[in-house]
Amino acid sequence: MARKTGSHSEITGPRVRAAAQSLIARHGYAAVSMRQIAREVGVQAGALYLYTSDKQSLLFDLMRVHMEELLDAVAEVDLDGNPTEALDRFARFHITFHLDRAEAVFISYMELRNLTPENFAHIAQQRGSYEALLEGILKRGHRSGQFALPDTKLATMALIAMLTGLTTWFRDGGRLDRKEVERIYLALVHQTVTSGEIPSDIAAVRAVS
Amino acid sequence: MARKTGSHSEITGPRVRAAAQSLIARHGYAAVSMRQIAREVGVQAGALYLYTSDKQSLLFDLMRVHMEELLDAVAEVDLDGNPTEALDRFARFHITFHLDRAEAVFISYMELRNLTPENFAHIAQQRGSYEALLEGILKRGHRSGQFALPDTKLATMALIAMLTGLTTWFRDGGRLDRKEVERIYLALVHQTVTSGEIPSDIAAVRAVS
Repeated sequence: MARKTGSHSEITGPRVRAAAQSLIARHGYAAVSMRQIAREVGVQAGALYLYTSDKQSLLFDLMRVHMEELLDAVAEVDLDGNPTEALDRFARFHITFHLDRAEAVFISYMELRNLTPENFAHIAQQRGSYEALLEGILKRGHRSGQFALPDTKLATMALIAMLTGLTTWFRDGGRLDRKEVERIYLALVHQTVTSGEIPSDIAAVRAVS
Repeated sequence: MARKTGSHSEITGPRVRAAAQSLIARHGYAAVSMRQIAREVGVQAGALYLYTSDKQSLLFDLMRVHMEELLDAVAEVDLDGNPTEALDRFARFHITFHLDRAEAVFISYMELRNLTPENFAHIAQQRGSYEALLEGILKRGHRSGQFALPDTKLATMALIAMLTGLTTWFRDGGRLDRKEVERIYLALVHQTVTSGEIPSDIAAVRAVS
């Protein structure tokens, strides 16, 4: 397909998404207008409407494309074979992908409330697909006896929250660099899925799962 | 001090905070006006300004009082004695406190960016005090040999993210009730701080901490 030319040639998906992402991350979806987004892209508001129908579509686009990129990227990671090694690769991938996209991660948690029910369902399904990859590793490891988990679904949510939480506090140039933080988090992830000394009243929960 | 009377009698701290919290959680700080908050409280905008100087003060108030309540409440929890039991009590407290305040938790992460540097520094200090309580337990447990942690500071951040993450997905009436979810998370917390089988390349990180 031929590229748009003339005054609208600068309106491309990535440029509009970048402008919308930066503004929404800074001010929040409800506070950002299409006019502001157009200004950030460097076009008239009218021209922006030629590209996208409304702000909801833009938000959905941001979150959907973020999840598509996540799912495409994780598809390149080898999650088969030894569950301990697969978990290691998953965690490394998750940390790097999310630390590189702190703004998109922030929006994808913060603005869920502003999606229409239909758009929310789509994002929830994409998230479910991603979580299922981690849960698959945990289930295999639990079956093989390498992992000891009270509940693979909750362990999945716990590990994703733990790892994604890095984006809320990690900054390059701090006490530890990315490589060190990654290694420490990998150690914590492995401890989380393996059995240490557990008080008997808590260990009892294992029996019910 | 005598209570305000007449048309302003309904402007109390808790009522203004409740209105602001509900609106900010729904729409975001930047999208909410003092006029909207006044309407939610049921007073004229002018009357609201008699109570609070501006929206920034209101936001800061929300986040500061949330942290004060957290610090006051955790001060009632016995965090001394056996580190394993102290960690257990801390985790139970953290889960209950945060699940009961999902809206305030959401705001306290989402709206940090909208605090003035001075106000941000105050909230960061309160957070630091809270995190130090958990890190204190982890340090004692690590010294006593009950815990095995690659880095107590990062383990603190990892555990808080794991536990607070519950507020993003847990809903009463789901597959598991609060009591079950709490027990499973406590088991995960204990596994996270204790040593299981760890691959040798990851275990190496222990030596440097």
